[in-house]
Order: sequence, then C-alpha cells, then structure tokens
Amino acid sequence: MPRPAFLSLDGLDGTGKSTQCRLLAEWLTAQKVPVTSCTDPGGTPLGQELRKLLLFGREHTISTTTEALLFMASRAQLVEEIIRPALDRGEVVISDRFLLANVVYQGHAGGLSADALWQVGAFATGGLEPDLTLVFDLPPDIAVARRNREADRMEERGADYYARVSTGFKYEAGMRPAKYRLIDATPDVDTVQKAVRREVSRLLSAHGWNVQE
Amino acid sequence: MPRPAFLSLDGLDGTGKSTQCRLLAEWLTAQKVPVTSCTDPGGTPLGQELRKLLLFGREHTISTTTEALLFMASRAQLVEEIIRPALDRGEVVISDRFLLANVVYQGHAGGLSADALWQVGAFATGGLEPDLTLVFDLPPDIAVARRNREADRMEERGADYYARVSTGFKYEAGMRPAKYRLIDATPDVDTVQKAVRREVSRLLSAHGWNVQE
Repeated sequence: MPRPAFLSLDGLDGTGKSTQCRLLAEWLTAQKVPVTSCTDPGGTPLGQELRKLLLFGREHTISTTTEALLFMASRAQLVEEIIRPALDRGEVVISDRFLLANVVYQGHAGGLSADALWQVGAFATGGLEPDLTLVFDLPPDIAVARRNREADRMEERGADYYARVSTGFKYEAGMRPAKYRLIDATPDVDTVQKAVRREVSRLLSAHGWNVQE
Repeated sequence: MPRPAFLSLDGLDGTGKSTQCRLLAEWLTAQKVPVTSCTDPGGTPLGQELRKLLLFGREHTISTTTEALLFMASRAQLVEEIIRPALDRGEVVISDRFLLANVVYQGHAGGLSADALWQVGAFATGGLEPDLTLVFDLPPDIAVARRNREADRMEERGADYYARVSTGFKYEAGMRPAKYRLIDATPDVDTVQKAVRREVSRLLSAHGWNVQE
C-alpha cells in the first residue's frame, strides 16, 4: 500500500504557484493517484470568512500579529477539516501555500520572530508538516516586472518588502534542505512543471506510488 | 507619578464578572484614577467581527484549536489597539477576561495543552500579562443553579465541562499566587465588590496611586 503524502507549493505572488498546483494535480490524477487540493488561507467555510476579514482589514486596523493569528486559525481548520481526513484516506494532498508563507510574510518581511511563528504554527497544525515544500523562486527584478500585471495588494507594500519576502523564502528553504526545494520560476510554465514533477516523483516513489514523469 | 496597571477579571460565566468590572471602573473613576475598560474577546472592530465568527461557528465547523486561535487574534488586536496605548498614557486598564480564559476553556475543559496556550498567548500579547487577575469562584452547584437563568451557550456544554472549567480556573490561579487571586463569588454583589476593591487597592497603592477602599 502506498503511503499518503502532503505537498505544499509556496513562494512569491506571481510565480505561477497556483497554475503549478493545478497542473500537478491533473498529472497525478491522470496516473490514478487520489489527490486532494486546497488553498491556504481558505479551503473551508470558516477560512473563506477569514479571507474576507483579512480584506476588511484594509479599512480597519489589523496588526501584523493579529494577521498571523488569523492565518493560523484558518490553517488549523483546514488541517482538521480537509488535510488530515484526506491523509487518513491515504491520499496525496497538494496545498497552495502553508505555514512557511506566514513565517516569511509576517516574520522575515513583517518583523515578527520567525521562530515564534514556527512554534505557533506547530500549535495550529497539531505538528503536521508537509513532506515536501516546493518554493518558487524568482529574481526580484523579474518579480517586479510580473507584479505590474498583478493585483494591487503587492504594489501597496513596495520593493523592499518584496525583497525581504524573496530572501526569507530562500533562507528558510536553505535551512531545511530535507523537506524544502527551491524551484526556479523564471522559465516557461511547462519547464517549471517538469521540475515540479521531478521532485514530486522522487518523494512519491519513496512513499510507494508508481508515477512516471 | 503613579505607574499604570493592568487588571483582569475572569472566571465562570454567571459569576457576576462583568458587573464587578463596571463597579470597579466606577469606583476608580470617582477617585480620579484614569481607567480604560475593555472586553476580551471584542473591544475592537476586528474583535467584534471575530465574535460574530465564533457564533457563526454554531452552524459551521470550528475546531477547538481554531477557536483558541480566533480568541488569540482578537486579543492581539485588543492589546495593540486599546490596552498598550492606555498603559502608555499611564492609565489603569480593566479587562473583562483575558488569556487565562483560553487556557481554562480550550485547555483544561477543551483538551488542548495549557502550556501551549500560555505560549501562543505570549505571542499574541507580545508578552503582556495582567499585573493582577481576579478569578471569581463559585461552587459548581450554585453555578448550575445560576446557569439556568443564563443564555444557552453554557447549557449546551453540560455539567462535566462546567466542572472542568471551574477546576481549571482554580488550578491556574493556584499555580500563580503572585498575580492571581481567587474571589469568592457566592455572596451578594456589594460584598464581592468589597473583596475586589481590597485586592485592587493593594496593587494600586504599590503602583503609587492614592485610593481609599
């Protein structure tokens, strides 16, 4: 019996993360691997409400600590309601972002302690960590160029913030080489997807799944 | 110059906590002590939204961990927006409940780790703790009798839960005798208020305030 696996794809906005999640899920489904896909934050009725609150925060005051805790609350519900049950059914879970995003956005870029965010995260998830996190990496100048075609949430925060996010992702991935891989997000979608499949194949083979790149 | 002070009143629902908060604030205000009163959860626009979400949770699923994190998020915003600024102005802050309630309701009664809740709480509050917490204590049988005249939220949870909450409050207060005091909530409102004023006078005198019981 193949073992369940928990995958997360993360990185800067505009790196094509969500497209890569979708393509990965389609590829695995075509090979008869049972897949559950989800988005963090979100993915549950409560998560949707919290997403709205985080938007509502544009008009009202939400501190960085509060923001982090709202993401954590959404994640706790996502783990309990979607991710753990899927893993218990023996499936492969693909999450569009996970805890790492909080560590980087509210920690490295937002000024909170990265260690404290990992700890609060362990409480929120009951200690559940992805077996593999793929971090999409894009040089800041290309990121800025792509950002101009994106929604305005990133634009509000400025180039310095963006650079701290980028550095934070690389730092955290570098600290945990066993479970985190940087993926170069500069090439075209198909080339990036190939790199994604290579990493995921390796993990899933180790978990006893028969997948062909 | 007298030093600011942070007071919290906590305990089982139906112990008269909120009435005692109001009477305490009135008494201090009459003696020209500058007071800021607040309610946890709540007390900010975001806190009000989170209160609604916690109600909304009756129809949707909210796990105990998620519930705790939503309370923590509300508290983080309350500390940043209301409590710290009031202390910075040199005032006395009275909070109707604080972190202890999460430790007891989601920890002792809800099954989560009390230690983990203290730790996540330290993150949410940036390490801010009340200088004094008054815990209103009521024997479970009287609590149950009063409960029948209360809203149905407590009734839903049953006598066992209520007993675990009561024991949890006593345990945590007993572990931290320097900053926590049990107040017998069985007598009439005035008698209880006298006991409250005695404890608060002692603390405020030590902080350099001139208050008369």
